[in-house]
Amino acid sequence: MEELSRAKGTRDFLPEEKILRQSVENTLKKIFECYGFSPAETPILERYDVLASKYAGGEEILKETFKLKDQGDRELALRYDLTVPLARVVAMNPTLKMPFRRYQMGVVFRDGPLKAGRYREFTQCDVDVIGAASIKQDAEIINLTLDAFKAINIKARVEVNNRKILDALMETAQIPEDKRTTAILSIDKLKKLGVEVVKKELQQKGIFTEPIDNLCNWISIKGTNEQKIKELKKILINKQGLLEMEEVLSYAPDATFEITLARGLAYYTGTVFEGFAEESAITSSIAGGGRYDNMIGLFKGSGSIPAVGISFGLDTILDVLKAQQKEIKKSVTQVFVLPIKVFPEAWKVAQELREAGINTEIDMLDRSVSKNFDYANVMGIPYVVVLGPEEVKEKKIKVKEMQSGKEEVTTTKQFIKKIKE
Amino acid sequence: MEELSRAKGTRDFLPEEKILRQSVENTLKKIFECYGFSPAETPILERYDVLASKYAGGEEILKETFKLKDQGDRELALRYDLTVPLARVVAMNPTLKMPFRRYQMGVVFRDGPLKAGRYREFTQCDVDVIGAASIKQDAEIINLTLDAFKAINIKARVEVNNRKILDALMETAQIPEDKRTTAILSIDKLKKLGVEVVKKELQQKGIFTEPIDNLCNWISIKGTNEQKIKELKKILINKQGLLEMEEVLSYAPDATFEITLARGLAYYTGTVFEGFAEESAITSSIAGGGRYDNMIGLFKGSGSIPAVGISFGLDTILDVLKAQQKEIKKSVTQVFVLPIKVFPEAWKVAQELREAGINTEIDMLDRSVSKNFDYANVMGIPYVVVLGPEEVKEKKIKVKEMQSGKEEVTTTKQFIKKIKE
Repeated sequence: MEELSRAKGTRDFLPEEKILRQSVENTLKKIFECYGFSPAETPILERYDVLASKYAGGEEILKETFKLKDQGDRELALRYDLTVPLARVVAMNPTLKMPFRRYQMGVVFRDGPLKAGRYREFTQCDVDVIGAASIKQDAEIINLTLDAFKAINIKARVEVNNRKILDALMETAQIPEDKRTTAILSIDKLKKLGVEVVKKELQQKGIFTEPIDNLCNWISIKGTNEQKIKELKKILINKQGLLEMEEVLSYAPDATFEITLARGLAYYTGTVFEGFAEESAITSSIAGGGRYDNMIGLFKGSGSIPAVGISFGLDTILDVLKAQQKEIKKSVTQVFVLPIKVFPEAWKVAQELREAGINTEIDMLDRSVSKNFDYANVMGIPYVVVLGPEEVKEKKIKVKEMQSGKEEVTTTKQFIKKIKE
Repeated sequence: MEELSRAKGTRDFLPEEKILRQSVENTLKKIFECYGFSPAETPILERYDVLASKYAGGEEILKETFKLKDQGDRELALRYDLTVPLARVVAMNPTLKMPFRRYQMGVVFRDGPLKAGRYREFTQCDVDVIGAASIKQDAEIINLTLDAFKAINIKARVEVNNRKILDALMETAQIPEDKRTTAILSIDKLKKLGVEVVKKELQQKGIFTEPIDNLCNWISIKGTNEQKIKELKKILINKQGLLEMEEVLSYAPDATFEITLARGLAYYTGTVFEGFAEESAITSSIAGGGRYDNMIGLFKGSGSIPAVGISFGLDTILDVLKAQQKEIKKSVTQVFVLPIKVFPEAWKVAQELREAGINTEIDMLDRSVSKNFDYANVMGIPYVVVLGPEEVKEKKIKVKEMQSGKEEVTTTKQFIKKIKE
C-alpha cells in the first residue's frame, strides 16, 4: 500500500461532525413520521439494467454510474438516487396498499467531476407518496418540507412552480415544440443570471423572433403569489397549471410561486418545488422534488401511477448548519467519572448513571486527575464526577460542572435527579 | 430490461420490516451512547489497496470483496467490514484524542455463497475503543453487549474467552507450534460437534499423541466460571490468560466463560466474546468481538495501539426478533383523519395533531368512509378521526379507537391530551 487515503470524493465523519449529522437525520425522521410516512430501505447494489432503464434517470446520470460485477458475472451498479429503486419496489410489489407513503435515507453514488460541495458518495433523504393524484398531496409535501427546515433550524424558503405553467408559457409564446425543453432549461437560470443573459442564451439557441420579448417579460413578473397568478391568468392560453398552483398555494400558503423554476429532470409532470436556505452563503438548493405521474407506471408497464416526492440533500443541509454552528460537539457523553484509587466504587456509580439513561464514560487509562480533566474539557463533556476514598466513605460524589467550574458534593441519586431536569 | 429484480443477495425492507429494524437500530444507538460512545461514519467505497492490506481482513475475505474502478481508473472496493476502515481513520488522524470511543452502523458487502440468513449486503453495528489497554475496558464492552440485548428484548448470553488461555492450552498440551492455529479452529467447534468429533478432527490434522486426550478433557471441563478457572489454574503452565479472565469476570459477572470459544479472525490478541440468543431457533452468533491490540498499530506503522470492540449483526438480530414478534407494524401513523365533505377543516385538524407531535395521515384519495376504515385497519393505524359537517358545526371530532371499536365525540385538544398520556 503506497499511502493511506480514502477513495476520491468520499469523506469520513468523525464524531464532531457525525453527532450533528445524526441529529439532523433524527429530526428529519421525526417530521417525516409526523406526516404519516413510514421508513423503508432498498439496497445500495442494484442490477445495472434496472438503473439503466429508459424510464429512469437518463443518459447523463448513467455516465456517472459506478458499475461492477458479482462473482456470477452479473452486471451491477451502485444506486445513483433513491427514486428509481422506489419505482422498482412499487413495480415488484403489486399488492402494496395505496397510497404508499414511505421515506428513505441513504447514500447514493455518482462518479462525476468533483467541486466544492460535490461528492461521489452522498446522502439523500427522500419522502414520496405513490398512488395519490390530488394536488393537496403536493401541498402536504411542501408543508412537510417547510416544517422540516424549521425543525432543523434553517431559515429557508420553498419555491414552487408547475410544469404545466411552463408548457403553457411555451405555447403562449409560440416557441416551436422542438425548442421548448431547451428554452425551459434557459429560463430556469433567470434567477441566477438575470433576464438579459437568459435572453441572449435563448437567441443563441435559435429562438429570436418577437415572442422572446414577451416571454422574457412574462417570466420577469414580480409580486406576491396572488399578483403573479392574476397577471399570468391574463396572458396564458392554457390555465390548468395556474389552477393547480392556486390549489397548492391555498393549502401551502408559505410557499413562494417562482415561475422560472423548472428542475432539470424530464420526468416531472406537474408541481415542482425546491428549498433554499436564506441568509446563507450556500445558494444551491437543499431539497427538491415534484410530481412525477408517469415514471412508476412506465416501470411497471401498466399505465400511469401518480407520485409526488421530495429529496433532501443531507450534505448541503449540513454545510448550511455547520456555517451557523456555534459550538462543536465532540462527544455524546454527559458525565465523565473520574476515580481516584477507588475504581470498583466509581464503576458502580457509572453503572447507576447509565441505568438512569445518562450517557456516561469512566476513565479507563488510569490517568492523573489533571489529565482526566483535560480530556473531559477537550471532549466538551459537561460534568465530571470525582470519586476518591473520602467520597466513598461519606457515600457522596463530587460533581464539577465544567462550563461554570462550580463544584458540589452530592449523592448519585440527587445528581441524577438534577440532570434529568 | 428482461425483468425487474434485485441484485442477488440483496433485500428490500418495506415499512413492515423496516419499522422494527429501525427501532432496533435506535435502541442500540441509545445503549451505545449511554456507555459514552459517539457516532462516526466512514464511506462505503474504499481504496482496494487499503482493504487488501496484509494487516486487514485476510485472504479469505478478499476473495469475497466487490471490486470496481472509478473514472480515473483507480481501484476501489466496497467495504467488507467496519473495522478496517476504522483502522484507516485512526491511522490517518494522528491528533485523535485517546481513548477514541466510537460506534458505527452501516452496510457491508461480501460477494460470497448465499444460504439462509446470509446476504451480500448486510448491516453491522460496531462499537470500539481505541487506546485503552485495560482489561476493565473488555468488561465494559461485554456489559454494554448484555445491556443492548436486554434493551432490544432478546434473551441472550455472552460467552467469553481469552486467546492467551487458548495459547496456554496449546503450550501445556504440547501441541507443536505449527499446528496450534488449526487445532484452535477445531476446538472452536466443540460446542457444535461434541468432543468425539473434535478429537477425530484433531487426529486427522496429525495431532495424535497422548496430549490430545488431556486437551480434550481440559476443554470439556464443566461448571461455573469460578470452577472452570480453578480447575484450569491447576493445569495450565502460563496463567496470564486466566488472570485476565478473572478480572473481566469480576466486572462482567453475567458473562459465561467458554474455554472453546476462539473466533476465527487471526487479529485477536486477548479477550474474545460472542453473543447468542437463548430460546431461539437461530443458533449462530448475534454479536462478536474481542481485543485486537496489534492491528491498528500495524496499519499506522507505529507500534501497538490497544483496541477492543464488538460487532452486532443486525440481520441475525432481526431474524431472532421476527420469530418472536407478535404483531407486525405496517405504518408509524397514529391517527388517520377521515374528512366527510369538509376537507379544509379536516386538514386543519391534521395540522393541529402534527404540531402536537402526533403522527398523522389524512385521506388524500377522497375515498368512501368504509374504504378509509379498511385502509386504517389494514395499516394497523390505532385511531381514526372522523370529521363531517356536523362535527365542524359543533367544533368537535369523532374518534374511533380501532382495536376496541369504541367511538367517542371529543375536541381535538382533549384527544391530543389523551394520546399524549
